[in-house]
Amino acid sequence: MGLQDNHYSEENHGHHEYLDLGDFPLISGEVLLNAKLAYKTLGALSDKKDNAILFPHMWSGTSASMESFVGPGRPLDPDKYFIIFPGQFANGFSSSPSNTKAPQDAGNFPNIMIGDDVIAQHELITKVFGISELQLVTGWSMGAEQTYEWAVRYPSMVKRAVPFAGTAKTTPHDYIFVRSHENAIKSDPAWAEGFYGKATDVHVGLRRHAETWSVMGLCSEFYKQEIWREIGFGSLDEFLVGFWEAYFKPMDPNNLIWMAWKWRHGDVSLNSKNNLDEALGRITAKVTAVAFANDMFFPPSDIVEEVSKIPNAEYRLVESLWAHFTMFCMNEKDKKAIDDIFTEVLST
Amino acid sequence: MGLQDNHYSEENHGHHEYLDLGDFPLISGEVLLNAKLAYKTLGALSDKKDNAILFPHMWSGTSASMESFVGPGRPLDPDKYFIIFPGQFANGFSSSPSNTKAPQDAGNFPNIMIGDDVIAQHELITKVFGISELQLVTGWSMGAEQTYEWAVRYPSMVKRAVPFAGTAKTTPHDYIFVRSHENAIKSDPAWAEGFYGKATDVHVGLRRHAETWSVMGLCSEFYKQEIWREIGFGSLDEFLVGFWEAYFKPMDPNNLIWMAWKWRHGDVSLNSKNNLDEALGRITAKVTAVAFANDMFFPPSDIVEEVSKIPNAEYRLVESLWAHFTMFCMNEKDKKAIDDIFTEVLST
Repeated sequence: MGLQDNHYSEENHGHHEYLDLGDFPLISGEVLLNAKLAYKTLGALSDKKDNAILFPHMWSGTSASMESFVGPGRPLDPDKYFIIFPGQFANGFSSSPSNTKAPQDAGNFPNIMIGDDVIAQHELITKVFGISELQLVTGWSMGAEQTYEWAVRYPSMVKRAVPFAGTAKTTPHDYIFVRSHENAIKSDPAWAEGFYGKATDVHVGLRRHAETWSVMGLCSEFYKQEIWREIGFGSLDEFLVGFWEAYFKPMDPNNLIWMAWKWRHGDVSLNSKNNLDEALGRITAKVTAVAFANDMFFPPSDIVEEVSKIPNAEYRLVESLWAHFTMFCMNEKDKKAIDDIFTEVLST
Repeated sequence: MGLQDNHYSEENHGHHEYLDLGDFPLISGEVLLNAKLAYKTLGALSDKKDNAILFPHMWSGTSASMESFVGPGRPLDPDKYFIIFPGQFANGFSSSPSNTKAPQDAGNFPNIMIGDDVIAQHELITKVFGISELQLVTGWSMGAEQTYEWAVRYPSMVKRAVPFAGTAKTTPHDYIFVRSHENAIKSDPAWAEGFYGKATDVHVGLRRHAETWSVMGLCSEFYKQEIWREIGFGSLDEFLVGFWEAYFKPMDPNNLIWMAWKWRHGDVSLNSKNNLDEALGRITAKVTAVAFANDMFFPPSDIVEEVSKIPNAEYRLVESLWAHFTMFCMNEKDKKAIDDIFTEVLST
C-alpha cells in the first residue's frame, strides 16, 4: 500500500489542510500514533466567530465530497458562512489504513469510533479556529452519525443540527448489512487480512462490494423506471459497472472496511451508559432530521423513532427514487429539496 | 456430488411420487434428458375431479414445504380438497443439478424457466390426474411466480389464483439482488464452476449467501424489536447462525443457484411477446394478490402495480415484521391472516 494512492490525491480532491493531533488516545483505550485530521474550509471566519458551519462527510467520502452543497447565492453561501469540511479517520487523507506506517499500517490500523472522529474535529474547531458555537452541524449518512455525536457530546456548541438519512444509534439491521459489505471485500483472498500489495489487487472484492451496494443502495422503483437513463447510462449493466463499480474501484479496501466498522458501531448512547433516551435528551440544538423516501439503509421509520426522543426536533421527508443517494443531487428537484431545508433551518 | 444428498431425502421431506417426463424440451431450445417431476398429494380427487388445488413451492423449498398449510378443519382441508404439491426443476427431488447424470450433471445442468416448470406441472395435472380445472393455484415467492405463469399460460384451467409475495414479472431490482445471492455462493473457490466434490465443501459460499439473506430477507424493525427472541434465540448472532446459516447450510449450492437463475428470469410476458399488459390481461382466474408489509424482495408497491393490470384481481396486505418470511407463520397471527385469506377466497 503506497502512502498515497492515486485516488486519495489533491489532484482528485483538492487542497487539504492537516491538523497534527500527535499520539491520539482513542475511546477504545488504544492510541493512534502521530494522528492527523485532514480538512478543508470555504469562506472566512467572522471576527465574532459566529458564522461557522461544520459539514462532516459520509462513509467512503472525503472532505471534498460535501463541497458541492456550497456556493454563492445558495443557502450555504461562503460569502456569508465559514464552512468547515472536516475529515474523518480512515478517509484516506486523515490517518487511515492506506497512509499510516507500521506498526499501525494497513490491517494493523486500530478500530476507530465515531466519537474519536468528533473529538478530533472538536480539537480543530476549538484549538485551531477558537470557535465556541457552530451555527449548524450537518451531514449525510455517516456524516449524520457525526452530526448526532456532536449534538450529544458537545450540546452547547451546536446551535442547529441537520442530519440527513442517518441515525444517532446504528440499528441492528444497519449493523448486519454494513458488516456484510465489509465481508464482501474481505471475501477476496487478495485482501489478505488487509496486507495486500496495492489496492487494485483487491478489485474482485471491491466489485462484490459494489454489487451489494447496487442492491441495497437504491430501490425497486428506481430500477423499474430506469432512472439511470437520466444520468446517461444505456443499460442496467452499464449502470452497475459505470456507476457502482466505477465509484468504489479506485478506493482503498481497508479504508472502506475501517470506515464501515466505525459506521456500524456508531451509537450516541455510549455517552450515557447505553441509555439512548438520556443521550438524545441532552441535545439542545434545534434538530431537523431528514429522511429520504425509499431509503433501505436508514428507513424513514428508524429516523422518526429517534426524532421522538429529541427535545427540539423536527422531521422532514424528501421524496426521491434515488433513495439513500438522494444526497447525490442527481437531479434539480433533489438539489432544491435539500437547499430548501438549509434555507429554512438557517433562517431561524 | 452424490446422487442423493442427505438433505434431499424422503427421511427429511416425506414420500414423493415421480412423473417421468422423458426427454423434455425446454423453452430455451435445449432438452432436459430423462426429466422427472417430483410431487406429493394430500386428500383424494373427487369423481368429478372438481376439488383440486395446486400449491407449488418457493425457491429453496421442496414439495414438503407447503404441507404445513394443509390440515383437517383448516381452509385447505384434505378431507374436502385434493391438494397437489408439485415440485420444480432444481429442487433436489425433481431433475436437478444435484441428482442428474452426465452430460447434464452439476455445472452442466441446463438453465430452466418458470414456464418449463409449469409445462411439466401441466403434464402432471392433465395426464396423470385428468384434471381440467383447478379450484385454486396458490404459492409463495417463486411459488407466486408459478401461480401467475399458470394463470397466464392456461387461463381456462385456473379458477382462482392466490400469489403470495411474488410478481408475475421479475423486477430489475429483484433480478440484481437474486443474482447477488447466486454470486455469493459462486464467490467460494470451492464452488468450482459447479463441479465441487460434495455440497458441504462449499460451506463458505453458503454462509456468505445466508448473510445476504439475513439482510434483505427481513426488515429493520424485525431486528430492532429482536423478534428472533420469540422463536427462542438468545442473541442476534445466535439467530444469524441458528436460523439463516442453519437453513441454507444443508442445501446443494447448485440447486440454489439454478433455482435462483429461474427466479430472476421469471416473466409471464414471455407468453405475449414481452407485452406484460397483454399477458396479465389474459388472466380469467379470480386473483387475490397478497403482499407482506416490509417485504424488501417483493415490496407491496410492486405487487399493487401488477394487480392494476389484471382484469379480476384484488389486493391484500398482511402486516407482519417477518416481512417476506411472513409465510413461515412463525406466530399464530401470521398463520391466521393467511388462513383467513384462503377461507375468503375458497368461499366464493
